[in-house]
Amino acid sequence: MTGTQGEPRSGFVSDNNAPVHPDIMTALIAANEGHEPAYGADRHTARLREVIKTRFGERAEVYPVFNGSGANVIGLQAMCDRWSAVICPASAHVNLDEGGAPEKVAGLKLIAVPTADGKLTPELIEPYARGFGVQHHAQPKVVSLTQTTELGTRYTPGEIAAIAAFAHERGMLLHIDGARLANAAAALDLPPRAFTTDVGVDVLSLGGTKNGLMFGEAIVVLNPDAVRGVSYLRKSALQLASKMRYLSAQFVALLEGDLWLRNARHANAMAARLAAAVADVPGVEIPRPVQANAVFAVLPPAVIERLLRRYQFAVWDERVGEVRWMCSFDTTEAEVDAFAATVRDEMSAHAGVA
Amino acid sequence: MTGTQGEPRSGFVSDNNAPVHPDIMTALIAANEGHEPAYGADRHTARLREVIKTRFGERAEVYPVFNGSGANVIGLQAMCDRWSAVICPASAHVNLDEGGAPEKVAGLKLIAVPTADGKLTPELIEPYARGFGVQHHAQPKVVSLTQTTELGTRYTPGEIAAIAAFAHERGMLLHIDGARLANAAAALDLPPRAFTTDVGVDVLSLGGTKNGLMFGEAIVVLNPDAVRGVSYLRKSALQLASKMRYLSAQFVALLEGDLWLRNARHANAMAARLAAAVADVPGVEIPRPVQANAVFAVLPPAVIERLLRRYQFAVWDERVGEVRWMCSFDTTEAEVDAFAATVRDEMSAHAGVA
Amino acid sequence: MTGTQGEPRSGFVSDNNAPVHPDIMTALIAANEGHEPAYGADRHTARLREVIKTRFGERAEVYPVFNGSGANVIGLQAMCDRWSAVICPASAHVNLDEGGAPEKVAGLKLIAVPTADGKLTPELIEPYARGFGVQHHAQPKVVSLTQTTELGTRYTPGEIAAIAAFAHERGMLLHIDGARLANAAAALDLPPRAFTTDVGVDVLSLGGTKNGLMFGEAIVVLNPDAVRGVSYLRKSALQLASKMRYLSAQFVALLEGDLWLRNARHANAMAARLAAAVADVPGVEIPRPVQANAVFAVLPPAVIERLLRRYQFAVWDERVGEVRWMCSFDTTEAEVDAFAATVRDEMSAHAGVA
Amino acid sequence: MTGTQGEPRSGFVSDNNAPVHPDIMTALIAANEGHEPAYGADRHTARLREVIKTRFGERAEVYPVFNGSGANVIGLQAMCDRWSAVICPASAHVNLDEGGAPEKVAGLKLIAVPTADGKLTPELIEPYARGFGVQHHAQPKVVSLTQTTELGTRYTPGEIAAIAAFAHERGMLLHIDGARLANAAAALDLPPRAFTTDVGVDVLSLGGTKNGLMFGEAIVVLNPDAVRGVSYLRKSALQLASKMRYLSAQFVALLEGDLWLRNARHANAMAARLAAAVADVPGVEIPRPVQANAVFAVLPPAVIERLLRRYQFAVWDERVGEVRWMCSFDTTEAEVDAFAATVRDEMSAHAGVA
Repeated sequence: MTGTQGEPRSGFVSDNNAPVHPDIMTALIAANEGHEPAYGADRHTARLREVIKTRFGERAEVYPVFNGSGANVIGLQAMCDRWSAVICPASAHVNLDEGGAPEKVAGLKLIAVPTADGKLTPELIEPYARGFGVQHHAQPKVVSLTQTTELGTRYTPGEIAAIAAFAHERGMLLHIDGARLANAAAALDLPPRAFTTDVGVDVLSLGGTKNGLMFGEAIVVLNPDAVRGVSYLRKSALQLASKMRYLSAQFVALLEGDLWLRNARHANAMAARLAAAVADVPGVEIPRPVQANAVFAVLPPAVIERLLRRYQFAVWDERVGEVRWMCSFDTTEAEVDAFAATVRDEMSAHAGVA
Repeated sequence: MTGTQGEPRSGFVSDNNAPVHPDIMTALIAANEGHEPAYGADRHTARLREVIKTRFGERAEVYPVFNGSGANVIGLQAMCDRWSAVICPASAHVNLDEGGAPEKVAGLKLIAVPTADGKLTPELIEPYARGFGVQHHAQPKVVSLTQTTELGTRYTPGEIAAIAAFAHERGMLLHIDGARLANAAAALDLPPRAFTTDVGVDVLSLGGTKNGLMFGEAIVVLNPDAVRGVSYLRKSALQLASKMRYLSAQFVALLEGDLWLRNARHANAMAARLAAAVADVPGVEIPRPVQANAVFAVLPPAVIERLLRRYQFAVWDERVGEVRWMCSFDTTEAEVDAFAATVRDEMSAHAGVA
Repeated sequence: MTGTQGEPRSGFVSDNNAPVHPDIMTALIAANEGHEPAYGADRHTARLREVIKTRFGERAEVYPVFNGSGANVIGLQAMCDRWSAVICPASAHVNLDEGGAPEKVAGLKLIAVPTADGKLTPELIEPYARGFGVQHHAQPKVVSLTQTTELGTRYTPGEIAAIAAFAHERGMLLHIDGARLANAAAALDLPPRAFTTDVGVDVLSLGGTKNGLMFGEAIVVLNPDAVRGVSYLRKSALQLASKMRYLSAQFVALLEGDLWLRNARHANAMAARLAAAVADVPGVEIPRPVQANAVFAVLPPAVIERLLRRYQFAVWDERVGEVRWMCSFDTTEAEVDAFAATVRDEMSAHAGVA
Repeated sequence: MTGTQGEPRSGFVSDNNAPVHPDIMTALIAANEGHEPAYGADRHTARLREVIKTRFGERAEVYPVFNGSGANVIGLQAMCDRWSAVICPASAHVNLDEGGAPEKVAGLKLIAVPTADGKLTPELIEPYARGFGVQHHAQPKVVSLTQTTELGTRYTPGEIAAIAAFAHERGMLLHIDGARLANAAAALDLPPRAFTTDVGVDVLSLGGTKNGLMFGEAIVVLNPDAVRGVSYLRKSALQLASKMRYLSAQFVALLEGDLWLRNARHANAMAARLAAAVADVPGVEIPRPVQANAVFAVLPPAVIERLLRRYQFAVWDERVGEVRWMCSFDTTEAEVDAFAATVRDEMSAHAGVA
């Protein structure tokens, strides 16, 4: 649809605007034969269980769900008692962009910690990890971090290990919102388990939709002792797919080979290319490190307005003129170069005017 | 998958076990081009809005969601205050088969009314439509019925109109769980609006998955005055699809032409064929009228056990030996005939033994 | 206040309309000295813990709360997982008269079982104690019964023992709403533990307000293995009293000696006296056994209307002309006799007219 | 209880540790006569409605509840849709000390704003009052502030008016947690309506327990257009008292005359006296302005430990050695002077050692 005469191109809005990767579409077509038991008793889900173990270790269990909010809310709920609280960055998707679902659907109290770059540290968490055993306080039970973060940054395995140790020492658990976990793996050049299972993460929301699926995320329980009742919670949180084979077949196609990695690597590379292409444009500031597939930039408001007539992208913070340019598996070098040239041109024109 | 050597065939378990209709798959492939705005701002969702109006009237609004539980819980919530109650048949999916989601996710009180055949009437509702204005009682606000019912029965337009009038006279609203609404339309030989919009239904859960979609149901608001905040509620109930085009494109393909009707008619015809084929088998009882795509039968336990070795189907009530045989858009006459013959044979063998 | 010229007397509406027993008021005054630690760390609550153990056994734990709905919702929640369901009589207070709080505050699914007399039996429960381990269904976890029931009937110890055994065999637990437990003890002439602790009840809501307190009920955990997080749940359910000494001091005064029993015995006796006094009035039907402090009666509507001009009482079911006359610890023989005489007179006048 | 040989005195822990004021006890005794209609239909509640109008204006409506958490959660809920968010200071009682009840009981999302002194300003609120109309975000609907704050500070009428205007301009509402509203009125030397009704506050939680009541807070709706369903919400939030006369009679006694003001003035005066008495003790820091009945102080840990052997008080933040000394209506000058002398002595001894 995008790019038709007169409409702004939507290529840098979100990896959610991208289509389904052709290999995923092929897998969906292949799965579309005959009857299969519903609700997860099918062959594709069985195969997915095996694939997840190869990626995340023998104890890993997988529960496919419809979307990322579903994965987060169910995963957190399964780790929490009714009186628990979840410590997360203030910038977390679960805090800002899930419409209050954790509170409303699950009754969870979120303790939102201000951060500079979307990343938690033990030092940042510590003032909030308090009040254990005191009946007046919702009890901190889970630390939830996002990898890669909503601000385009990423954690090293060591950083995650430190948070896991901090949490576990206090009887708390560690959850990762991995809507863009593949981008982190690509950027770190490490297998996903190296910065999840192997460093003490208990439960993971594993993204699919942003990495080329039609729909679907997966709750991956890395530590089965950390959860209770995931199946029941998935059902009552409205996330049990009847024709689950179509969820699972997509994930098998994504994870069995290296499609997940190729897609993420490409998206990251396009973001790096874009950042490099505009880095030296006078007046454009790149305020955050580009560590995955997002580029944040600060531009004059007039330039943002003009750019938005030709390209769609998110205005992240209009007060400071910050925008987000998101790359996806299908972003092309040509698109990046054309967009960067447009930015350069508009900035130049703006400078001439100003 | 089904029918391989030694495995029981799953053909009569559920319309959820059926694959995706080829025309739907074609629509999904066609929708898979380029970037589209996420979360419902795409062309396919815009088109769906038009299609829904042609089917349900100019005031009708549509909100695609992932599954039927989602449609029910969000639709009911949008009609209800925090202190409202919903009157439904005890056999309703929303009462029995949604894992307590209405209570847990939405805080709704369900008032479950015992019925003989899964159908409500004003007389059955009346004893529960009480206590208006009394602070001690959750306030009855919505009547929810299922068309066709979970017991394979259906309402006439007049029956629905009577319930709507009863509800509206008391300041209540009428909701229909239409997971199998198409089967009712086919069986009644009426357009869907004839027994929804035109008889006073306020909100409808419109089924897709059971009628050939990969995934997807739709909240169809027939009376916009009856709801508040549907978009917000859809988000916070974890049912806002990011790549919504793939939900909407399926529904457009289903509803634009007559695919919905053909699929439903076929499923109904297969159920009628099956019921007819076993009706005269000695010892088989068909305890409920076959008015849509489900056949309920009472058989000796030993026969049920033997049948389950060759075919999968639901044991509805093991205490009385009642089973459910569900037909779908892809059930073939040959499958029906072969299954009926098997039933006949097993009953005969059982009679010989007994 | 009641009985002033021209206003109907409120004596038979509810035991909630009664004042505070003088001995309780004395205890409140005695407790009102100096500072005491808040939230349950006071001397009176410590003493209450001891008193409860003498009444209900060494394992019994007590959590005072503000009211009966609070006791029920917290007690049930502490026994339930997020995916649990509670089986109760359709006539239960928790189902009919708590404004949907169990669903709304705690996300509990209630499975309301129709009964003839407000009493459950294993046979009545059995059809609903199903679906264990099936992810589609809220999981039955607790049976909740009321002693004495909302219909003025009571269970024998053997009846409760049978339900407890039935529940425990299925991995379920037994809860008693004992808002009027003292009336049962008085009527059965048994100590409360004989039909709670000793027959397998797990958690009890122990009434106080209806038996002479100013405010206050108590969650009594008879089986500590049956609950989790009561303190946290009490807090988050808004039922943690800051100046808890005034709750506990009342319960100590009620339970330490035999005040609870005297009050209940008297209320029961007044109900029996009233029932006896009207039993032979032509046209008055006593449709339910009078087994505690409530008398239900069926009268002609015109008589009900005339009686309501002089006395306040609850019209239980206007469709059949059933009323409820509730006696309390302070109901006097003279009040009963005067009221019975009024009933007799009105019925006589009505018969003359009719 | 306090002050017995060898036990630390509890006088400075909390105004919740204080007893019931004698005038309140007298009112309770006076109310304890005969039967009264339950659930708010009694004479005392009727009188309270009048008294509240004299204090807060003709539109003011009152709903007595059991405790402050109840008042806050119900009041906020009545102002909020299911998809609303509440902006409050991070230090708010509703955020820190209600066990997650707003999230769990009401599904509310709290947006906790860091502040220096427990006070919000339009500037502090502004970055969080965003995303209106965007379906991904819980919708900011209410600003909730506390007067006097949890940190012992207070707002001027002008400061509250500015926040009210800011909120109303954006379609938001203003809520005040007034657990210690009387202390603010006393300190400001203004009638309560001067900084509530008259400056645009919509709903108020009016404290009673901390100002001499046995139990009880009141939801005071200053702007009836700002709320929906308060009665139903009070019931389903477990805060509807059956014998409500005892709640209302206390509030009448508190508010009809000037008891509320005398109590608050005295508590404030004792805090001022205490602050003055320790202000010049070397090594004692008073880090916050003493604007109501709380004194915060920073002391050496060893001194805190020694003081706690003789007096009970709250350690507010052990990381920085901050303690809270709370005065109440019954704190005496002698207690204050003795405590201040003890502080002086311990600091002196500590200095000698160090």
